[in-house]
Amino acid sequence: MQEFAVRPDPTDPRLTRRVHGHDQDGAPVEASVVVERPLTLFLNGQEIVTMMTIGDHPDWLAIGYLRNQHMLRPEDELIGVDHDDETGTVVVRTRTRTNFEEKLRKKTLTSGCAQGTVFGDLMERFDSVSLPADAVLRTSWLYRLMHKINTAPSLYLEAGAIHGCALCQQDRVLAYVEDVGRHNAIDKIAGFMFAHGLEGGDKIFYTTGRLTSEMVIKCVQMGIPILVSRSGFTAWGVDLARQAGLTLIGRARGARFLVLSGAQRILRDADARMVAESDRGAGRKGAEADG
Amino acid sequence: MQEFAVRPDPTDPRLTRRVHGHDQDGAPVEASVVVERPLTLFLNGQEIVTMMTIGDHPDWLAIGYLRNQHMLRPEDELIGVDHDDETGTVVVRTRTRTNFEEKLRKKTLTSGCAQGTVFGDLMERFDSVSLPADAVLRTSWLYRLMHKINTAPSLYLEAGAIHGCALCQQDRVLAYVEDVGRHNAIDKIAGFMFAHGLEGGDKIFYTTGRLTSEMVIKCVQMGIPILVSRSGFTAWGVDLARQAGLTLIGRARGARFLVLSGAQRILRDADARMVAESDRGAGRKGAEADG
Repeated sequence: MQEFAVRPDPTDPRLTRRVHGHDQDGAPVEASVVVERPLTLFLNGQEIVTMMTIGDHPDWLAIGYLRNQHMLRPEDELIGVDHDDETGTVVVRTRTRTNFEEKLRKKTLTSGCAQGTVFGDLMERFDSVSLPADAVLRTSWLYRLMHKINTAPSLYLEAGAIHGCALCQQDRVLAYVEDVGRHNAIDKIAGFMFAHGLEGGDKIFYTTGRLTSEMVIKCVQMGIPILVSRSGFTAWGVDLARQAGLTLIGRARGARFLVLSGAQRILRDADARMVAESDRGAGRKGAEADG
Repeated sequence: MQEFAVRPDPTDPRLTRRVHGHDQDGAPVEASVVVERPLTLFLNGQEIVTMMTIGDHPDWLAIGYLRNQHMLRPEDELIGVDHDDETGTVVVRTRTRTNFEEKLRKKTLTSGCAQGTVFGDLMERFDSVSLPADAVLRTSWLYRLMHKINTAPSLYLEAGAIHGCALCQQDRVLAYVEDVGRHNAIDKIAGFMFAHGLEGGDKIFYTTGRLTSEMVIKCVQMGIPILVSRSGFTAWGVDLARQAGLTLIGRARGARFLVLSGAQRILRDADARMVAESDRGAGRKGAEADG
């Protein structure tokens, strides 16, 4: 797969809008703001949820959401995804009806940008996942990935107030997506992986969002052994990562990072001081996309 | 009311945990991470929702959540709030049973740190709110508030990965709260206001989170005419703020800010260059709490 097979398109006029305002001195300013729009997801005849999203890749978002919620199981045969832009709906159709009503019974509102994760069910599957022990993250890859992601044209650099995440392999960024909700972003990646038949075992997942329990759970169930964020950790996120044997790296900015789980997968082949020098002045600084 | 009547307590051993890890050079590091725990909310006999929260002020969170969701109406007489730390439950009791089941029918998952906001109902009430036209925000107040909030001891400065918000009056911070979900933080403020009988008309609301539609809706229904964030905007947030006549200020860092709605309430009495000088090196930098 080519590098940046998917990347943000800050020139797409549907995704941002120019608005007029004033700066601290009262001078008129024109700024870009991200557009959020409702997207209602149906699984066959059943309405599942309405999500607020920037609206790109509705098909991946729909499939990724259903897969990450285990409403769409590996054995369910997908026969179509119909997106209607005008009504803001996306319908995922399977060969046989799925039995997901019980999954909707108990929704736990989770911290951060939660989508009412069906928690008990996720935890059940979480325990059965085995992440590859021989996966490796070279620090030279990590620094190159962060430089590529932070300097790639993006809605973040254009308008701020958005989360990004990226599916990577060694030092290559395969897919970089953004959304107003960080869970939409990771779900789009899950849908992208499903659409292209990609496995997680040799991948690295990067997110701008915090490393909370749900983030860790989703990464683990996508089979990805290495999760990196420029943001911080929550205690439960750390616990779950250790339980699953996930390599968990946070506070990754410039040459610095902190690893709180799975440090044995890290191979330090880069000189941190060099990176700090070369990366000065590059792209993303303080994260404006506070969830 | 005294200044900082409520403020974060980074020394509370329940709120953070020390974990061991490694830095980029492989050196052992001990770091603080924020603890998230489930809290299940009941209204009388009915289970409403399970929230992930840091766990301080469960009573305000419960009341603020129910009020912001309009499950607890002004006419409902509150007769008790029982929190059980061991079971992680909080029960809000009213004199007469409330009729909120219909509110639970359609949940819209909203962008960012959504709690499945009951959207249609919120919008109905949104249109009926009238914010005071004569409210004022002096820029000297704004800079002092930001300096106080950013330099106050907090879980953010201790552990990162957390959202903060503050209820302010002129240049005084009345209450500063934090939580893993930014909606928990604003709901705690709503509960605090309810508990102390505070009106919103002469207040200023500060948040570290993005100015999305739900953030604007909650601020408006709390009757607060001025909303400030260090983060950015979404287009719908801007639209709703303009519709409600809310003063909406984002990207407020150091001396800089951007106002996209209600600029007429701003009184520029501070010299931005002086603030930039005096605030250098203070507290919160890049926002690590990306939701």
